[in-house]
Amino acid sequence: MSKTKVAVVGYGTIGMRLADGVARQEDMELVGVADVAPTPAVRALFEAGMYYDLYLVDLDKKPAFEELDIPVSGSIQDLLEQVEIVLDATPGGIGAKNKELYVKHGVKAVFQGGEKNEIADVFFHGYANYEKGLGQNFLKLTSCNTTGLIRTVDAIDREVGVEKVAITIVRRVADPADTHRGLTNVLKVTPVPNHQAVDLMTVMPHVQATGFLVHTPVTHGHIISVVATPKKSISPAALTDVFRAHPRIRVFRIADGFNSNAALFKYARDLGNKRADMYEVGYWEECVGLSGNDVLYAINIPQEAVTIPETIDGIRAALELQTDRLEAVGLTNQYLGIKPGR
Amino acid sequence: MSKTKVAVVGYGTIGMRLADGVARQEDMELVGVADVAPTPAVRALFEAGMYYDLYLVDLDKKPAFEELDIPVSGSIQDLLEQVEIVLDATPGGIGAKNKELYVKHGVKAVFQGGEKNEIADVFFHGYANYEKGLGQNFLKLTSCNTTGLIRTVDAIDREVGVEKVAITIVRRVADPADTHRGLTNVLKVTPVPNHQAVDLMTVMPHVQATGFLVHTPVTHGHIISVVATPKKSISPAALTDVFRAHPRIRVFRIADGFNSNAALFKYARDLGNKRADMYEVGYWEECVGLSGNDVLYAINIPQEAVTIPETIDGIRAALELQTDRLEAVGLTNQYLGIKPGR
Amino acid sequence: MSKTKVAVVGYGTIGMRLADGVARQEDMELVGVADVAPTPAVRALFEAGMYYDLYLVDLDKKPAFEELDIPVSGSIQDLLEQVEIVLDATPGGIGAKNKELYVKHGVKAVFQGGEKNEIADVFFHGYANYEKGLGQNFLKLTSCNTTGLIRTVDAIDREVGVEKVAITIVRRVADPADTHRGLTNVLKVTPVPNHQAVDLMTVMPHVQATGFLVHTPVTHGHIISVVATPKKSISPAALTDVFRAHPRIRVFRIADGFNSNAALFKYARDLGNKRADMYEVGYWEECVGLSGNDVLYAINIPQEAVTIPETIDGIRAALELQTDRLEAVGLTNQYLGIKPGR
Amino acid sequence: MSKTKVAVVGYGTIGMRLADGVARQEDMELVGVADVAPTPAVRALFEAGMYYDLYLVDLDKKPAFEELDIPVSGSIQDLLEQVEIVLDATPGGIGAKNKELYVKHGVKAVFQGGEKNEIADVFFHGYANYEKGLGQNFLKLTSCNTTGLIRTVDAIDREVGVEKVAITIVRRVADPADTHRGLTNVLKVTPVPNHQAVDLMTVMPHVQATGFLVHTPVTHGHIISVVATPKKSISPAALTDVFRAHPRIRVFRIADGFNSNAALFKYARDLGNKRADMYEVGYWEECVGLSGNDVLYAINIPQEAVTIPETIDGIRAALELQTDRLEAVGLTNQYLGIKPGR
Repeated sequence: MSKTKVAVVGYGTIGMRLADGVARQEDMELVGVADVAPTPAVRALFEAGMYYDLYLVDLDKKPAFEELDIPVSGSIQDLLEQVEIVLDATPGGIGAKNKELYVKHGVKAVFQGGEKNEIADVFFHGYANYEKGLGQNFLKLTSCNTTGLIRTVDAIDREVGVEKVAITIVRRVADPADTHRGLTNVLKVTPVPNHQAVDLMTVMPHVQATGFLVHTPVTHGHIISVVATPKKSISPAALTDVFRAHPRIRVFRIADGFNSNAALFKYARDLGNKRADMYEVGYWEECVGLSGNDVLYAINIPQEAVTIPETIDGIRAALELQTDRLEAVGLTNQYLGIKPGR
Repeated sequence: MSKTKVAVVGYGTIGMRLADGVARQEDMELVGVADVAPTPAVRALFEAGMYYDLYLVDLDKKPAFEELDIPVSGSIQDLLEQVEIVLDATPGGIGAKNKELYVKHGVKAVFQGGEKNEIADVFFHGYANYEKGLGQNFLKLTSCNTTGLIRTVDAIDREVGVEKVAITIVRRVADPADTHRGLTNVLKVTPVPNHQAVDLMTVMPHVQATGFLVHTPVTHGHIISVVATPKKSISPAALTDVFRAHPRIRVFRIADGFNSNAALFKYARDLGNKRADMYEVGYWEECVGLSGNDVLYAINIPQEAVTIPETIDGIRAALELQTDRLEAVGLTNQYLGIKPGR
Repeated sequence: MSKTKVAVVGYGTIGMRLADGVARQEDMELVGVADVAPTPAVRALFEAGMYYDLYLVDLDKKPAFEELDIPVSGSIQDLLEQVEIVLDATPGGIGAKNKELYVKHGVKAVFQGGEKNEIADVFFHGYANYEKGLGQNFLKLTSCNTTGLIRTVDAIDREVGVEKVAITIVRRVADPADTHRGLTNVLKVTPVPNHQAVDLMTVMPHVQATGFLVHTPVTHGHIISVVATPKKSISPAALTDVFRAHPRIRVFRIADGFNSNAALFKYARDLGNKRADMYEVGYWEECVGLSGNDVLYAINIPQEAVTIPETIDGIRAALELQTDRLEAVGLTNQYLGIKPGR
Repeated sequence: MSKTKVAVVGYGTIGMRLADGVARQEDMELVGVADVAPTPAVRALFEAGMYYDLYLVDLDKKPAFEELDIPVSGSIQDLLEQVEIVLDATPGGIGAKNKELYVKHGVKAVFQGGEKNEIADVFFHGYANYEKGLGQNFLKLTSCNTTGLIRTVDAIDREVGVEKVAITIVRRVADPADTHRGLTNVLKVTPVPNHQAVDLMTVMPHVQATGFLVHTPVTHGHIISVVATPKKSISPAALTDVFRAHPRIRVFRIADGFNSNAALFKYARDLGNKRADMYEVGYWEECVGLSGNDVLYAINIPQEAVTIPETIDGIRAALELQTDRLEAVGLTNQYLGIKPGR
């Protein structure tokens, strides 16, 4: 069976993880990655042995790479000629420009959450609306918070139905090492509803949602508190079971020492995960309770890696590699080493 | 009319503010404050002109004060002989020991939230259950988060009734300059329900409550996100009106530049408020929305000063200075310079 | 004796403090302050009773003020007609544009450190080169770090002579409530030499200086570590005595609980200082030691208020109110309540 | 050739990295690691495949491990029977108690910097005083800051001689995920001299040293600013060359995007280094300058991994595996993948 040929455009925080994720899919081939400058991320790729071919968005920048002995395989056009689909992980707004190029070269594309919804045929989530993505040319992934949130709301919805959710997002304000943005000793508030609640309703139109978001000065993962109104009541223990059975949700206990977003990051480091990444949303067994019929629970969103699996699901949907939702996400999970029951 | 004679025991973060608050009450006399050591707070009192008489918990420590030329008026026993009521602002657990002394000297006392509920005859909140405190000997105040939270829930409850609330507390982890506690780049989670939800139910037993709390590495005020289920529906605009009419809740707009907990702290600095304090809970006009019949809103809790008004209300209740709730809180507000309508 | 008529242009972090500082000078009259919009700072001025007349840089913005019932006294031109000198505290770069206006109206001006050196006739520091400012039309103040640093280096220089200094600045990255800049869990480094070392050499050309600066995610004051090579050796105890005698340097002890930049901020709060400000540089008695003949010491720079005294000194120099350096700084100190010996 | 048999006691932040480091030494065998409880670190070891045998300090705790299906190989005594040397990475003070056990079992040991100097025969640094450790029974490693600092001072000393150093340590206050310690919006100062300067003089008695240390609220690496007085003058460019030639010092450029301690951590993540660790001290090419004859430079200390190489050097010295300093450190470097010239 021939492998699906994939390119990653934009080798930043998301792009480098998409490249690694695609490279682990045994039924896909990462033909190459494209970027604009010899950033520290590109240097690391090269110093670590450069297992991905590198293409340039602007070939005029080639001398800057040559000066560092970093080999260049060609232009982004050369790359597009060889692939069926692109994962676009460029900064918000650039994807819209790139789309013209993708159209011209006749390749499909999956965009990240920073782009406007209009860029895509469907606003996509691997678990919640896989079928909507089947055969589409352009998909846009939900953002990191929305992706993780929907995993849990969709899981409850498929179990007992969900009428509405009210969420509070305690947002990490920057990724580790960011110096172009940040907050210092400030909890910054934003208007209700936040875009994640609105986006959830776009992907799950039968659920009502609103939410509040506060930016906090940390880097290792968002925390979302969810108040969900189920259609049939569900006990905290039953909710934990539902989440434990979900491959992309992982259950932790504060009592075992997993008492923070950073504790989960540290665990990923100690597991030897590349870049200390975790694909799974974290859920705390002690952080669930009932408010009448509503259920309150809290989850952790590892912002750098959480969208990788659903983006790869997007390849499967767009190219109709699998038509069955669970078969598709199951393959993605298998190749990424994601296992249910933990 | 003779003034009510009051002592403050423990001149720390809360105690110094209680002393200032009592000193502003025209119908009360702050006889003195008691502490154990010449801390920076005591030095500041002295350097600023020492308008409060200082008594020592342990007279053996007097030489340490004399060395700094800080005058000492006597022992804590001397102080207790002169007063009708004590505001105990000692560290959690010390109040329980002090209670024996208060009983011995026949003085009433109001304890802070760090003590166990058993220490007091009633768990008190000036607005929510003033009547319960009338004539009691020992009152315990709700903690800072609970005090501010109850202000808002009580206000809704008196307007349309409240059935239940589910809260998410984004907690500042330390006060400015704390070095004995702190967090660095961590969002620390805690089990559901948090004590604030439990405490709310103790003070407002007809309301059901649960909640999640996350510690964040900031110092200028907690932020609470509340999902309240009212008995009769209430619009966001109507909720804002209810809060604007409450003297101890202040309405802000993000659009005016008040975009964070720290922005409110800065505003208090620029107003020239002593110690940059604010007694009022902050509420953001843009941070409210409906989730079905439920209403979601967010408030800011200025942790250092928020309990001062309700503690002074406690004096009024314990000594039955006023038997009417609104008359009592109104007098406290008037003397503290707290005005409704903003 | 008629009072010197002064205007403050730009009512932000520095401008509001300059206004307060000038208002306290008994030989000066603050005619008014100018700004562009009804910022929280302007609202606070108004809510607190508006003791300063407010002029607008752009009269077209008047309706925005009227909507809030904030009275406007006129345009910046109206203000300039009434004064002899302006303290310009506008954001970096704006001062250069404003200068044309000042020239046109024939008023002198003192600019803050954010402007380029070329804007002024002299790069000024009240203690170090007061004489250079005498009679000049345009002065530029040293930045906050440089102002505080020079206080100490100048003090040593006048005592035993200073040959060279090597400084390490541990810089607070934002002011409290800043959301337009900040760092999260990052120590950001910058090239050697930092501008503060270069600026020191401009003001004290007989001293050689270099330095390293690292940005840290805190808001309450910079800390500078200085390695100074004196011309005659000086003991740590003698250095402490020199600093204690300096009105604008204040000696603290870690052992007394003053163990951080934030502890000094808290002390200013507890003293009841307006906005919790401190004009004095902090010096720690335990943070000094010898390295051969060199002396190593550490100071704290309260970034929001430290330049106020030297800026007021600038008024005295530019208008030749006093020709003697010590007489001039002494008057500024007296009116600001700054006392030596602590 | 038979391999040197090594045990690691204490599987925390340092211990887990020592275990990995020893496991990479081709002339050593990691017989096992010992710990007290099934911490997240131990769970990660197990979940990742458990390539190290686990021994228990207290066999009574075995059920807690069995409950999690984590296999236990025996007691710490069983482990000590099989090895020649122990790397003790227990919390400060525990090592002193463990020493009795090591003496009883006739094994040598290398302790970490948290223990008192008296515990060991020599205070050891692989590069600076390797010869002092030859054949000794008990070595104590310098702490993380001192280890990294001495690498650079020793390198200069061997090139041009060093007369004295004055250092400023900008210290990260906690490791990622620490919740038992931390600081929030505080720069905490400590008395001069810091212990690192004192320790440097113990290891390099011919150099005079003093220093100031400030704790900062970050987690990804300390930064040290060094003012060194060389015996013969050295230019900034020559200093950079000396450091570039040192295998355990790595040269970075701010201009390339390596502008912070966190940028170096991120680079280690992107390189795919296990746990995102870096053994090398970072040095910035732009952060060096002259102050007269003195040279000022800045380095980054990756606190979690920096002592690993020198601790392994300690094995080589104590067991006299190599008698030549450069041969010893060279082997350690080779097996750890540390290369000079970058």
